[in-house]
Amino acid sequence: MKEIGVGIIGMGTVGAGVVQVLLENEAEIIRRLGARLNLVAIADKDVESDRGVAVPRDLLTTDVSRVVENPAVAVVVETIGGYEPAKSFLLRAVDAGKHVVTANKALLAVHGDEIFARCAEKGVDIGFEGSVGGGIPILRAVREGMAANRVTSIYGILNGTTNFILTEMKEKGESFERVLKEAQRLGYAEADPTFDVEGVDAAHKITLLATMAFGQKVPFDAVFTEGIREITPQDIQYAADFGFAVKLLAVAKYDGRRVEVRVHPTMIPSDHLLADVRGVYNAVYVDADFLGPTMYYGQGAGRRATASAVVGDIIELARNVRMGTAGRVPPRAFQESALAQAVLKPIEEVRCHYYLRFTALDKPGVLSKITGILGEYNISIESVVQKGRDAGQAVPLVMLTHEAREADVRQALGEVELLNITLGAPALIRVEG
Amino acid sequence: MKEIGVGIIGMGTVGAGVVQVLLENEAEIIRRLGARLNLVAIADKDVESDRGVAVPRDLLTTDVSRVVENPAVAVVVETIGGYEPAKSFLLRAVDAGKHVVTANKALLAVHGDEIFARCAEKGVDIGFEGSVGGGIPILRAVREGMAANRVTSIYGILNGTTNFILTEMKEKGESFERVLKEAQRLGYAEADPTFDVEGVDAAHKITLLATMAFGQKVPFDAVFTEGIREITPQDIQYAADFGFAVKLLAVAKYDGRRVEVRVHPTMIPSDHLLADVRGVYNAVYVDADFLGPTMYYGQGAGRRATASAVVGDIIELARNVRMGTAGRVPPRAFQESALAQAVLKPIEEVRCHYYLRFTALDKPGVLSKITGILGEYNISIESVVQKGRDAGQAVPLVMLTHEAREADVRQALGEVELLNITLGAPALIRVEG
Repeated sequence: MKEIGVGIIGMGTVGAGVVQVLLENEAEIIRRLGARLNLVAIADKDVESDRGVAVPRDLLTTDVSRVVENPAVAVVVETIGGYEPAKSFLLRAVDAGKHVVTANKALLAVHGDEIFARCAEKGVDIGFEGSVGGGIPILRAVREGMAANRVTSIYGILNGTTNFILTEMKEKGESFERVLKEAQRLGYAEADPTFDVEGVDAAHKITLLATMAFGQKVPFDAVFTEGIREITPQDIQYAADFGFAVKLLAVAKYDGRRVEVRVHPTMIPSDHLLADVRGVYNAVYVDADFLGPTMYYGQGAGRRATASAVVGDIIELARNVRMGTAGRVPPRAFQESALAQAVLKPIEEVRCHYYLRFTALDKPGVLSKITGILGEYNISIESVVQKGRDAGQAVPLVMLTHEAREADVRQALGEVELLNITLGAPALIRVEG
Repeated sequence: MKEIGVGIIGMGTVGAGVVQVLLENEAEIIRRLGARLNLVAIADKDVESDRGVAVPRDLLTTDVSRVVENPAVAVVVETIGGYEPAKSFLLRAVDAGKHVVTANKALLAVHGDEIFARCAEKGVDIGFEGSVGGGIPILRAVREGMAANRVTSIYGILNGTTNFILTEMKEKGESFERVLKEAQRLGYAEADPTFDVEGVDAAHKITLLATMAFGQKVPFDAVFTEGIREITPQDIQYAADFGFAVKLLAVAKYDGRRVEVRVHPTMIPSDHLLADVRGVYNAVYVDADFLGPTMYYGQGAGRRATASAVVGDIIELARNVRMGTAGRVPPRAFQESALAQAVLKPIEEVRCHYYLRFTALDKPGVLSKITGILGEYNISIESVVQKGRDAGQAVPLVMLTHEAREADVRQALGEVELLNITLGAPALIRVEG
């Protein structure tokens, strides 16, 4: 039976999961692939610690060249994460003619152009299914399942940590800070949760998805990103009263001319399928011209699910090695030469409905002054509710607008603040669907 | 630019949709594929009728050999449907060395072994994504996205007609017969709705899915199939009272030894994602050992969605033609030589919870007699509700059982009928999740 050599750089959580899949499901993989994946070498700084997986000791090495330049290795898996040394090791493998697999969304979102170009130049394939949506085969769906379509929009719950936090805040009525601590205790949030709670991780992922869906290169730093730190249990409750759920949504749209890509807390109708995605789960809702709407749901992170995606990629590349082909499917769904540079719609020009919560003085005329200013900026109100009464004191004044332009909303809110009839800046949540 | 010749047999709804995709999205497809799909010939009995698509008149022919034996055609698409002449034409194309695409679930579920074997023998590829779940790329997900996994279970809403009927029955409280007429009027159900409402169409689809997911050949006639004709709005309401939704579910499970495959009305918890799949939409929920649960949702039928899947397959096969490879991925996910003949678990040995509705005389001792018989067959009751009171008259007596064996349930119900304290056979709905 033909054997295809596999090498791994990085024996952390995902690396150990990959080894576990290769060992536990070896027979199943052979039945599918018609060849054997042969684990040749694993490089890590630490070759002593126990990862709970029975790895033959002689496969472990601290010398990365024994993976990336090993003639017996056809496919190199990078599971280090982060920018460096992951990038240098990955490119060394590519330069040595190895096909590569990674789940490193930060690396690909920021340095993708360079990495994909190098793969094309060297004639090697790259798999990165695990980088978006964990084990959910969403990149395959976009790349191949939708190949006949023009994709028009994507709505993704792409970060499990923040979805867990928002779910808990809703179901237990607790504050962001309190639920974050619980998430950290459970291992669902990292000690430094910035990348997750500020929306950076979701922005990495939507950068990759948008580029692949629209065939338009989206630079990572063009993604408007707003995290969930400011969301309160009150806002979640008020949203529910209006018939909406609050999710950290990654949104990408393409109108055939301009691309808009943004990550922010978003209100979606409670009866939308995405509203039912609870806890650490991820889901991606995509609309395409012939296919119509489709949704993909599953575990967005975790050792086992990510390892499933990584080994799925190894198998895919091994099929190519077996057939002696490369470059069969372009990694970003479109031929690299056909990828255009996206013309981006700035956030100021985005139009959507808005949820606004003012902390306003409970006295006659306040509502009319606020809505007057909104009206001057062409922002009309769909519904408004004052939560409680407390004459002369500050009470929450909650409203939903009809579709309005972000720049108008920002300017109007600035003017409202100058009136000194509200306390602090209002809460603002964009509404989709 | 390289061109790959495409021929179509059958210019009905799906065939016309395929032509429409090829014409409307030609530029997009070139950007993805790096080659041009060249529509060479379309065979149909009727070359005169207008299908609402601008097909060059000289491509149309009544002579199928101008498609299946045309040297300029590399990929042949069969969109006739049914067993014959679809099967003969498809095999003629395969014999002529053409790669083939079809969305014909009935043909593949019943004659799959012969067709897949012929493709392997002739070294041609076959795509059939459109045959299950319409445009949802569920076969790709099972075949490639889950390649690293052992799949353990599948729960699918695989028939849009019946899901539309059950949704309408629930939301409007109307009878099966009335809603069926409405579905026929709207074009969601055919004049002869037997294949849909009796579960045959869903059984075709789960036959294909189960074989691909488990690597075990499932014969179509081994699928236990029960339709939705007997479901009443009352049962749907009583199920909701217990916290369940009623769906026509296709269920397939594999415990590593035996495969069970069945299609029947099924109660699932109201908070399960599948419970929210409304109208003509389809969804498939799959559990796999490393990936965990994933769900795939979208339009399960219709000209545009099915055409999306068919053209996606054409593109996939065209990639192989371009690379000069074939047989890269086995069509049924496992190497044909590695597919085992499934050892099937007969329906009598299936274990699940049951919803039972008796029409019982409202008099003392009836409940105890019924539960006594159930108890003799090891069927214990989770909850029981008598709906209304009408002394001496027949009233609905509704119960949910704990897990029980199908054979025991059938025998117990037979004995209850002999007591003459109930009218007619009880309603029975299996419960999952």
